[in-house]
Amino acid sequence: MDTPDVLAWRDGYIEALDQTALPHQVRVQRITTVDQLVDAITTLAVRGAPVLGVAGAFGVALAVRQGGREGWDRARLDAEVKRIADARPTAVNLRREVSAVASWIPEGRAAVEAAALAVAGTAVTASEQISRRGAAYLRQACGSGRLRIHTHCNTGSLACLGWGTALGVIRALHADGALEHVIVDETRPLLQGARLTCWELGQLGIEHRLACDGAAPFLISQAVAGVVGADRVAANGDVANKIGTYSLALAAQAAGIPFLVAAPESTLDAATPAGSAIPIELRADEEVTGSAAPAGTRALNYAFDITPAELVSAVVTEDRLILPG
Amino acid sequence: MDTPDVLAWRDGYIEALDQTALPHQVRVQRITTVDQLVDAITTLAVRGAPVLGVAGAFGVALAVRQGGREGWDRARLDAEVKRIADARPTAVNLRREVSAVASWIPEGRAAVEAAALAVAGTAVTASEQISRRGAAYLRQACGSGRLRIHTHCNTGSLACLGWGTALGVIRALHADGALEHVIVDETRPLLQGARLTCWELGQLGIEHRLACDGAAPFLISQAVAGVVGADRVAANGDVANKIGTYSLALAAQAAGIPFLVAAPESTLDAATPAGSAIPIELRADEEVTGSAAPAGTRALNYAFDITPAELVSAVVTEDRLILPG
Repeated sequence: MDTPDVLAWRDGYIEALDQTALPHQVRVQRITTVDQLVDAITTLAVRGAPVLGVAGAFGVALAVRQGGREGWDRARLDAEVKRIADARPTAVNLRREVSAVASWIPEGRAAVEAAALAVAGTAVTASEQISRRGAAYLRQACGSGRLRIHTHCNTGSLACLGWGTALGVIRALHADGALEHVIVDETRPLLQGARLTCWELGQLGIEHRLACDGAAPFLISQAVAGVVGADRVAANGDVANKIGTYSLALAAQAAGIPFLVAAPESTLDAATPAGSAIPIELRADEEVTGSAAPAGTRALNYAFDITPAELVSAVVTEDRLILPG
Repeated sequence: MDTPDVLAWRDGYIEALDQTALPHQVRVQRITTVDQLVDAITTLAVRGAPVLGVAGAFGVALAVRQGGREGWDRARLDAEVKRIADARPTAVNLRREVSAVASWIPEGRAAVEAAALAVAGTAVTASEQISRRGAAYLRQACGSGRLRIHTHCNTGSLACLGWGTALGVIRALHADGALEHVIVDETRPLLQGARLTCWELGQLGIEHRLACDGAAPFLISQAVAGVVGADRVAANGDVANKIGTYSLALAAQAAGIPFLVAAPESTLDAATPAGSAIPIELRADEEVTGSAAPAGTRALNYAFDITPAELVSAVVTEDRLILPG
């Protein structure tokens, strides 16, 4: 799975695995302009909160290169960089890493590129630390047997580089011989669970079963824990994550099992006091209505939901285990 | 929507709207043999708990006709009738109405057909009574404004003949000018919400929005009540209904809004003490994996889930309003 790279800086352009083509096609995109990057982000060819952070970092480097070729002034460069930051609203990582790398612009192209590569390196390291700490937490919380874990959406290499967040925790349990199997929600409307997580688990040889999102709350009682990633964690501990997470958290509470959120520190947003202040991306109706609904049907296509802090057993990051209260 | 009929006895055979072809094609099937009927039921061309009861009733009449043509003895007839009763396990209506109409076999073909037609007539009448009683309950429970209602799967004319159960309640609210709009879960894997409920609501001119099943628990707080049908209600009040119902009920409880189950008396099963004793149909993996998941992916495709009685505010039938406790 390390070949091809999910997202890489190739000295002047970005190479990205097109996640809309998986699992049936492994297709690499060459991204040489801000337009192409914004398009890749909005269509979810490049996705996953930590990967969006890296894409934002690489995006600043890309904008500096394009600006050099096309003779942009600083105002134009800033405007292009802002378009990258604004390409999707919910994952705080995108905006944060764009801003961090953009602060190096006055130091010149080499400094910007070094900063962008450092963001990618940190993402990989963080992901392994999150994975190991999360696995240790679950082995302590759920006992010493082989664990059945329920997860939602895609939070592996494709979303995070490295091992992943929630899927990294699952991978670490597997590496320790402490995993029985994984129940994966299909994660409508774009089916990142069915398409991407099943693909990653297949590559890793990890036993798994796919379930409809609506089945997840019923099935979670067959698992010993729910583990998900996050797009943003508010200061009060409320978690924005892929739509369907809230129902899984409610069901975990009803089943009396732990619900773990695995996310890098860059996902924690001290500036947002509570989940109600997190902007929730509302995407096109057609992603939901597809070819099934009658023509002209309107949808409510929120891409994320908010899980209140009281439903989260713990948030694990590369630095710490955050317990409620 | 009254033309063509959803399900009708045509003096010797059954005519059924093929619900797998909706909403894009309005196709009527002529069913002349038990084989064809069992196939229509297992593929969900004919579906919905109350309609399954009527299909079972008509099925006995059909078996008697086919047995007459083909010279079946009583043992063969009983075996064919049992195949109809066993075509799907969860909705108690199918088995119950097959058994009720089969008890007329000794009285001859005319008696069987009269009994079968009576089951259909009762279904239509019951559905209107359920609809009006359910609407009155919601107007009392949720106040006098125009109500926003969240529903799951399909429970209208297509599922019930007549007005429907949960969708009948919605239709009655609309007729009274007491409905603002409806949020419809798409209801994976077979999308009966997206395909059938949106189609029925469109025909009725009722404002609606489609949502992914995973979004339902997040969106229900925008509604004043959740209303669903049932495939079986156990003696203790636990409800088996389309997969995804349980998560909606959990979310309704979390949002502090009523969760109403609308179902005919024939769905109440005094012989099943609790939800844990209701057989849950496990359907083919391919309905979930479809073309999205990698080839060979296994699924867990339970067609129904169990909502514990304590999450149900009331069960409304054609005869009564059953409140918990």
